[in-house]
Amino acid sequence: MRVAIIGCGQLARMLALAGIARGLEFSFLAMEGEECTPVQGLGPVVRFGEGRDLSRLYAELGEPQVMTVEREQLPLSLLRALDRLAPVHPSPDAVAICQHRRKEKSFLGGLGLPTAPWRLVDADTDLMALAGELGWPLFVKSCEQGYDGKNQWCLTEHSTATPPLPAGNAYIAEGVIRFDRELSLVAVRGRDGQMAYYPLTENRHHQGILHCSVAPAPALSPGLQGVAQEMATTLMTAMGYVGVLTLELFQVGNRLIINELAPRVHNSGHWTQDGSQTCQFDNHLRAITGAALGSTSTRGGGASAMINLLGMASPQSLPSANTRLHWYHKPVRPGRKQGHINLVGADRAQVEGEMTRLLKRLYPGIHRRLQQPVAP
Amino acid sequence: MRVAIIGCGQLARMLALAGIARGLEFSFLAMEGEECTPVQGLGPVVRFGEGRDLSRLYAELGEPQVMTVEREQLPLSLLRALDRLAPVHPSPDAVAICQHRRKEKSFLGGLGLPTAPWRLVDADTDLMALAGELGWPLFVKSCEQGYDGKNQWCLTEHSTATPPLPAGNAYIAEGVIRFDRELSLVAVRGRDGQMAYYPLTENRHHQGILHCSVAPAPALSPGLQGVAQEMATTLMTAMGYVGVLTLELFQVGNRLIINELAPRVHNSGHWTQDGSQTCQFDNHLRAITGAALGSTSTRGGGASAMINLLGMASPQSLPSANTRLHWYHKPVRPGRKQGHINLVGADRAQVEGEMTRLLKRLYPGIHRRLQQPVAP
Repeated sequence: MRVAIIGCGQLARMLALAGIARGLEFSFLAMEGEECTPVQGLGPVVRFGEGRDLSRLYAELGEPQVMTVEREQLPLSLLRALDRLAPVHPSPDAVAICQHRRKEKSFLGGLGLPTAPWRLVDADTDLMALAGELGWPLFVKSCEQGYDGKNQWCLTEHSTATPPLPAGNAYIAEGVIRFDRELSLVAVRGRDGQMAYYPLTENRHHQGILHCSVAPAPALSPGLQGVAQEMATTLMTAMGYVGVLTLELFQVGNRLIINELAPRVHNSGHWTQDGSQTCQFDNHLRAITGAALGSTSTRGGGASAMINLLGMASPQSLPSANTRLHWYHKPVRPGRKQGHINLVGADRAQVEGEMTRLLKRLYPGIHRRLQQPVAP
Repeated sequence: MRVAIIGCGQLARMLALAGIARGLEFSFLAMEGEECTPVQGLGPVVRFGEGRDLSRLYAELGEPQVMTVEREQLPLSLLRALDRLAPVHPSPDAVAICQHRRKEKSFLGGLGLPTAPWRLVDADTDLMALAGELGWPLFVKSCEQGYDGKNQWCLTEHSTATPPLPAGNAYIAEGVIRFDRELSLVAVRGRDGQMAYYPLTENRHHQGILHCSVAPAPALSPGLQGVAQEMATTLMTAMGYVGVLTLELFQVGNRLIINELAPRVHNSGHWTQDGSQTCQFDNHLRAITGAALGSTSTRGGGASAMINLLGMASPQSLPSANTRLHWYHKPVRPGRKQGHINLVGADRAQVEGEMTRLLKRLYPGIHRRLQQPVAP
């Protein structure tokens, strides 16, 4: 069976590596200007351009039986047109919700799921007045093309400039959530409606970029996993979702608030490659190809962690028997996700100890911050 | 770093898939007439032929920093010549021992390691008289090119024909070992001499072909793992071995007898892909590239099993969340290893139950035989 992935980055790469092992074949659709080194050699790469004949493009992709996406920022018209040739999972409708903050917030609100307070804004909005309502600081975010802290602004009462909000784009303003930590839930739903969930993962960011994850999230109050799973169930059922869906969450005391959704495998689920019976990549492929989902159990009830390798060359040696390097084959650029290290162990203390040593070596300036839940 | 693999079968494929994930690049050297579908797309394939200029061939392989083999039946002259261009691990000397039964038996005997009683034979040997000494049945095996039951004959006192033993090949005759079961030990030694061992695996054959493995081997008497590890330590140290070495063993009561050695990753170690912290393929690559070895611990102290898919098309659906399909992309032929299924679980009874159901479905004629250790 051939699967086409729209996108050529590390998520496409790791999906293909998981799928090739089980006999699937892959092709990749590159957007204009997209670098394709991560998927080089893993299947034919076809480049999309405006005005391209889609049935010819579909033929060049090897007439895949199913297609999927590695990111949500893709032209919906393209996804809808491809979906008429072979199913795109998750569906273009599901991607449409997740690629647009206003649609996503409205969708979540309509299902009664908790989010930060928000309003649609534009260049004419009196942000000062709005902050009076939503509180300081005020986050202003582009509805589209915003990820890893891009196209986002944080205004405080001392801000002297307001963000430029050019017409043509939509924006929302969000009140701040004074969260205790950021968590995520990677969930998956099969074509037959079967669902599975990985343990909640604790994510530690620095300057808007995920630096490391710890799983299962330490010191989780009882019931929180169930609450997150119910949220995912509600969402996936409402969307008729097929594939992996990631919920980015804020934990505030004993409550979970949804920050955003990612209609795809997620950086915070990379630890599952070495820490779960079935990794998120394999389970996404099982879901979209109609196979039975694999067990999401943690391997032997152990602990896992993941450290992103940002803007650095491949570490020549990893000292420990419990680490595994994953490398994306991307030209090195400052801040870029070049690879990651998974750490696994039966014992959380051991994993955290090794993580501390690695963070100290890889991120000497900020390693102390990354050793604990990061407050906003 | 580029690694060249001599051979293009499923072992090369699974080595490459494990290594690509960690950022290694691969090229493959195909022998004359060798089918290369398993490694298609995973790196350049260069074809060897008599009289080829080796430095040009090395350049076509992308000037790999290290080379390795996926099988022992390779021309030693080629391995020795390549080893002068970049290190071949395991060394040609180690491969030389393992590719020739007489050399292997002599080597084992010289180290005081137990094997079946054996003699070098040729067409002039009185096999009847020899059987008087070694016992019935008598196994006659070609010293080279014998695997999966090929080029082997079993003579009983009722045999009317003796095997043709054309001059030019060497042969040994072996007395039978009335073993309780077949076990194997997958061991690995790094370039720095560090060693690691997987748990003993129980292997069940039918007509000379491995059909399934169970790991860790059930009902193992205390001490046997240590005995096997000591054998491997002795062997790897004596050979200055680098990479994965597999010991095929007979268990007789509380004793282990070495049947043969494989200087490579092994079918009986495939379960480590889903049942170990680090799989045999990753550890072989770590060893030959000089990286630290990965943990060989069983994931969470659980149980694993592996079922070979012989001469059959890819199963369209696997019912269980605890199974994972590995597929080799080889044209289907009767009896051929096309792929395998790994089963993992925290609980041995559950894994054995699922294995029984799968064997019944995949091997309806012989599934009962495969549910227990197979006597000779």
